Amino acid sequence: MSHSSFSMPRRHLLAGTASALAAAGLASWTNGAAAQSTAAKPLPGYAGWKNPKNVIVHSANTIETRRSAFGTSVITPVDQLYVRNNLPPPDASIVENPDDWEITIEGVKNPRTLTVRELKTLGLETVATVLQCSGNGRGFFPSKPSGTPWTVGAAGCVVWSGVPVRKVIEALGGLVDGVPYMTGTGGEKLPDGVDPKSVVVERSVPVAAAQDALLAWELNGQPIPLAHGGPLRLIVPGYQGVNNIKYIKRLAFTPKESEARIMANSYRMAPPGGKGSPQHASVWEIPVKSWINSPSGEGGPVKAGKVQIHGVAFGGARALRSVEVSVDGGKTWKEARLIGPDLGKYAWRQFVFEAQLPAGEYVLASRAVDVEGNVQPEHRIENDRGYNNNSWADHAVRVQVA
Amino acid sequence: MSHSSFSMPRRHLLAGTASALAAAGLASWTNGAAAQSTAAKPLPGYAGWKNPKNVIVHSANTIETRRSAFGTSVITPVDQLYVRNNLPPPDASIVENPDDWEITIEGVKNPRTLTVRELKTLGLETVATVLQCSGNGRGFFPSKPSGTPWTVGAAGCVVWSGVPVRKVIEALGGLVDGVPYMTGTGGEKLPDGVDPKSVVVERSVPVAAAQDALLAWELNGQPIPLAHGGPLRLIVPGYQGVNNIKYIKRLAFTPKESEARIMANSYRMAPPGGKGSPQHASVWEIPVKSWINSPSGEGGPVKAGKVQIHGVAFGGARALRSVEVSVDGGKTWKEARLIGPDLGKYAWRQFVFEAQLPAGEYVLASRAVDVEGNVQPEHRIENDRGYNNNSWADHAVRVQVA
Repeated sequence: MSHSSFSMPRRHLLAGTASALAAAGLASWTNGAAAQSTAAKPLPGYAGWKNPKNVIVHSANTIETRRSAFGTSVITPVDQLYVRNNLPPPDASIVENPDDWEITIEGVKNPRTLTVRELKTLGLETVATVLQCSGNGRGFFPSKPSGTPWTVGAAGCVVWSGVPVRKVIEALGGLVDGVPYMTGTGGEKLPDGVDPKSVVVERSVPVAAAQDALLAWELNGQPIPLAHGGPLRLIVPGYQGVNNIKYIKRLAFTPKESEARIMANSYRMAPPGGKGSPQHASVWEIPVKSWINSPSGEGGPVKAGKVQIHGVAFGGARALRSVEVSVDGGKTWKEARLIGPDLGKYAWRQFVFEAQLPAGEYVLASRAVDVEGNVQPEHRIENDRGYNNNSWADHAVRVQVA
Repeated sequence: MSHSSFSMPRRHLLAGTASALAAAGLASWTNGAAAQSTAAKPLPGYAGWKNPKNVIVHSANTIETRRSAFGTSVITPVDQLYVRNNLPPPDASIVENPDDWEITIEGVKNPRTLTVRELKTLGLETVATVLQCSGNGRGFFPSKPSGTPWTVGAAGCVVWSGVPVRKVIEALGGLVDGVPYMTGTGGEKLPDGVDPKSVVVERSVPVAAAQDALLAWELNGQPIPLAHGGPLRLIVPGYQGVNNIKYIKRLAFTPKESEARIMANSYRMAPPGGKGSPQHASVWEIPVKSWINSPSGEGGPVKAGKVQIHGVAFGGARALRSVEVSVDGGKTWKEARLIGPDLGKYAWRQFVFEAQLPAGEYVLASRAVDVEGNVQPEHRIENDRGYNNNSWADHAVRVQVA
């Protein structure tokens, strides 16, 4: 059965919300056809400081880093880091006095509202994470799922500073009983005339993820910009981007998962044509993944001789063990060398593979393995919305050597 | 003997060069009185993309990161990284096609000129380093030495990618015999009518430093901007900034140190009032150092109660072992906690010390120790030009808690 025969019901399902958003002047914030156009678009105002050369603007809410722009230095500069918003960001005034931002903590023995200023007295930690949209790699699905057709650029490796969530829990007397989930709610203004549950950005993750989570106010050494969730963002290391709630206004430890659509129905691993529901796995942990950034085939033929093939590899929720490279489309593999500083288990590593390549055509691929032995698979897991693509075959590149 | 009684001979010595530079329209590039003004100045054109809020512009060749802007995330964003040039940078056109830049390698068995494009085939490595001007901390010298009065902001921790110098040596047949120095020459245009040796940016370091050195084309994930030495910069990890030659056009393994003034006379640990010469130690290795970035006393009184005191610490040429904090001006010390990813021996670490501070006045200080047991000293080494200040007392801050 082809995918297209299944697409009608899903579109139908979304129609009510889309109409309401259109009425609220927010039509461009949905994942509609407009987001799929590849024509060059201007940067939206709230991200106007991004480097236009290094990004692809899919829509006002979806901006991708170019594969050629990743470089080799581990850290992704903020001015080329991808953006994916589920709603328009709040007014920029919220980042003018970031210490005044308030967050309500619930599901602890002494629930209360805290300012960022108060959070800053409770503790300080820094963590480097792969930040990745769960739809990264969607563009490689032949079924063309609805949503932005990201290739590799809805990801980056960045450094966050903030207070450990466990320090906040501790300061508020510990968790109440029976709360297996940590639920974060974004501070976006919700459009009128729409069921809040259908649009609110609210996600739940297993409470165990709180152990390494941060309430962060800094990104790569500077206050978090509005485009990336400032003044305060929930960082859940090892979890796909959508779980890292921007402008977080409420952090609750809850008996159940949120009933918001973004949790209950979207970001679910439903089969092609299926409707996402709580019976399907949510896009939580980032699976092991890697890809080659250079040569990528984009810059024309490569000169025959010694070539430094390089890319990024990460274990996602687990540390990376190793990465292999193939220059023959996956027939044979050899271990690549990890270079540069190791920023910890949630960061990516840069890898290099030195090859002698005579003139010809090559299919270059990389395949990562995490510390638990999970191997990046050849094939993607087919799913309706094109999530969690870590197929090494999809990420391989065809390169001419002359 | 006061310092001022010694200052005349040095000024006299420099007068010839200063006049020639003035004639060439380059007067603002000397370390004269103009550089010491604290009035707000505009960013120079080649660094116009820096974030003006986070820097202090001392002059067209000297831009400092504000102490309050360092943040807590290990990496210093390039848009607030300090700048110190000894000559105006070359024309910006050199960074338009960075792969075309050429460097001549000498003192190897097969000397030759290589393009960046060719260097990129020879190897790839990434290293995080503290980049620090040897004059950082000069502003704390009561003797007010000539030169920019940097406090803490002529330093940053950044990530470089490029080819290891040892890979280049290997590709060119190895070193010739009898070359104890690695000498780099910058690609700046020299003013007419001046003895080239008096102005050329050419520095020698012990050849052992080549082991970890890079010829780098990338800084924090992007091509090195002109302001930071792009398209190609020599990175000598663990060595003070002046040894990291910008726009490097020649890398020579040499029997002797360069006779350029910047090597033979400047950047020497001459006694106060003395004239720098090869008999005095050159500013090579970075000594162990740390300082507190927050609270710094700049933002007004701190609220009484729990306070997260944080700053940066580095071993310089050696890895950092630990860092202690004092809240009583150095009478008593307690070990601080190192946070965040460890980017390797040449990087700095962020440290945090959680203190309960009742209302009162405090002098906060930090003291680092490197892996060889070198302890950051209480007192600076007095020297004519104010180099290598790693005194913990000079870097202490006075803070009101209310």
